[in-house]
Amino acid sequence: MADPLADAVRAGDPRAVARAISLVEDGGAAGATVLAALSGAVGRAHRIGITGPPGVGKSTLLAALGQRWRAAGRRVGIVAVDPTSPFTGGALLGDRVRMGALYGDPGVFIRSLASRGALGGVSAGTHDAADVLDAAGFDPVVVETVGVGQGEVAVAAVADTVVVVVAPGHGDGVQAMKGGLLETADLLVVNQADREGAEGLAAELRAAIELRERGRRPDVLLTTASEGRGVAELAAAIDAHRRDLAAAGGLGARRAERALARVRDEVDRRRARAFWTARAGDLARLVAEVVDGRMTVAAAADRLDDVRPPEPPRS
Amino acid sequence: MADPLADAVRAGDPRAVARAISLVEDGGAAGATVLAALSGAVGRAHRIGITGPPGVGKSTLLAALGQRWRAAGRRVGIVAVDPTSPFTGGALLGDRVRMGALYGDPGVFIRSLASRGALGGVSAGTHDAADVLDAAGFDPVVVETVGVGQGEVAVAAVADTVVVVVAPGHGDGVQAMKGGLLETADLLVVNQADREGAEGLAAELRAAIELRERGRRPDVLLTTASEGRGVAELAAAIDAHRRDLAAAGGLGARRAERALARVRDEVDRRRARAFWTARAGDLARLVAEVVDGRMTVAAAADRLDDVRPPEPPRS
Repeated sequence: MADPLADAVRAGDPRAVARAISLVEDGGAAGATVLAALSGAVGRAHRIGITGPPGVGKSTLLAALGQRWRAAGRRVGIVAVDPTSPFTGGALLGDRVRMGALYGDPGVFIRSLASRGALGGVSAGTHDAADVLDAAGFDPVVVETVGVGQGEVAVAAVADTVVVVVAPGHGDGVQAMKGGLLETADLLVVNQADREGAEGLAAELRAAIELRERGRRPDVLLTTASEGRGVAELAAAIDAHRRDLAAAGGLGARRAERALARVRDEVDRRRARAFWTARAGDLARLVAEVVDGRMTVAAAADRLDDVRPPEPPRS
Repeated sequence: MADPLADAVRAGDPRAVARAISLVEDGGAAGATVLAALSGAVGRAHRIGITGPPGVGKSTLLAALGQRWRAAGRRVGIVAVDPTSPFTGGALLGDRVRMGALYGDPGVFIRSLASRGALGGVSAGTHDAADVLDAAGFDPVVVETVGVGQGEVAVAAVADTVVVVVAPGHGDGVQAMKGGLLETADLLVVNQADREGAEGLAAELRAAIELRERGRRPDVLLTTASEGRGVAELAAAIDAHRRDLAAAGGLGARRAERALARVRDEVDRRRARAFWTARAGDLARLVAEVVDGRMTVAAAADRLDDVRPPEPPRS
């Protein structure tokens, strides 16, 4: 376990953290070595997921929360996989200026990751980067993703506490998203609460939550992140959620769920890679028959699946 | 091939179409039988994908296009997998009223599908439902999805022609989405063109397209779907795109790409199901070690992957 890079990460050296995240994002052997050396140090941070549709002010809210956490002496790690986030590369300069209080603060580490087509932007690299920040002593570690319905569910697998952010004036979306929102959110935030319709939206969400017979009943909070209003209450609610979860024994369950999804995804990816490398010729031939209408997709899948012997029992 | 349900679908019987889509969505043997019986009749329709962030007016635009297609005597099939779409179950009553001209028209078949967590909402059922509508003689067959970046890429696999819709006032999103948008779109539409910033957004997109050294260079069109403005031009551009694609031999390539992705996904899903059924015990044991910090995700994956013998060469 004598790994100089891992040692530097554990000591919180920002250049080592940046280097380790790059390695784990590459997905190669060097990244795996660092993660192995860090594994004993992972698991202390509060993992927070922030998600919601584009334009509701997730990043502004995160910046406001970040300032509170900093004021409390906490070191804040942020992984931004929301392609519309100002924390992520493509954003407007003006957004970066708004976020300026966090940029350049040595107690804040912000890393943007490409979503690589993964659902809700949460890929293996997202989890691994969060692990590095966790091992480096950042707490909380926040993952910011974009979500418009089912996408939110993916962030649940990254976080101990999932904060779903909505805003008035995104009515169509919120209405249709209600089901998925309620199932995923630990806390529901109506941001841009100074705009018309915010109270109505909050009431609508609370009513929908009341109707649920089972499952989580997330609190609904109102914030105006651009003016800092409601942020203290949100920060307190986030802390309280984790406390309650830990007291109820739910923290371990969340982490087991997270580990399970990560292991499954990793194995599925490796097996698919090996399989399709070996079967590229068969695939091309069968696809040609599907395109000609001589075979259905299911029949082609039968043929590819059939040449494989049954899975052996575990050895 | 004597399948009464498939015969009724080919004859365009709407109840048979609805029943067939339900069967293929279930993913069982009955659905596979119907798809097999229909496979020779699939491939005539123009498949159109409409995607973009929530709130840009995709559905209003689709409704306006639908009316034009109906006026031209075409039968229109719509598969809506956008959870924020008024075509999909959860929408506001007001949206359905706005779409009223299409609802109840026997020449229009609208089906909402759950996105089931698939990327961009495009699951196996989406493709299968589009196949049923195609075999039933609907042309075009439109798939409406929601996209906020990488998600758009998935819709490319469903469609001959991909229309990406944006709108002014969703600035952050559009800025960050540019890369993905340009790569996916066959046609870029700036909707809500009566709003401030529409011309600037179109100019910005055109400038970004000009800078590309290779790849598609999608046309940028302006529409105000709610007033029907620009819709005739868009309908013409959609037709022209398919004509150009067919003339350049690209239609077959798109369809092969689509078939390839579908076969791969189906096989991956089946193999994962079989694998994890057989390995549930191993998985649980290894996940416990990951949660305890005694093992990394990669090491757990190594152990699961190792008990499998190497893939045999093709038989």
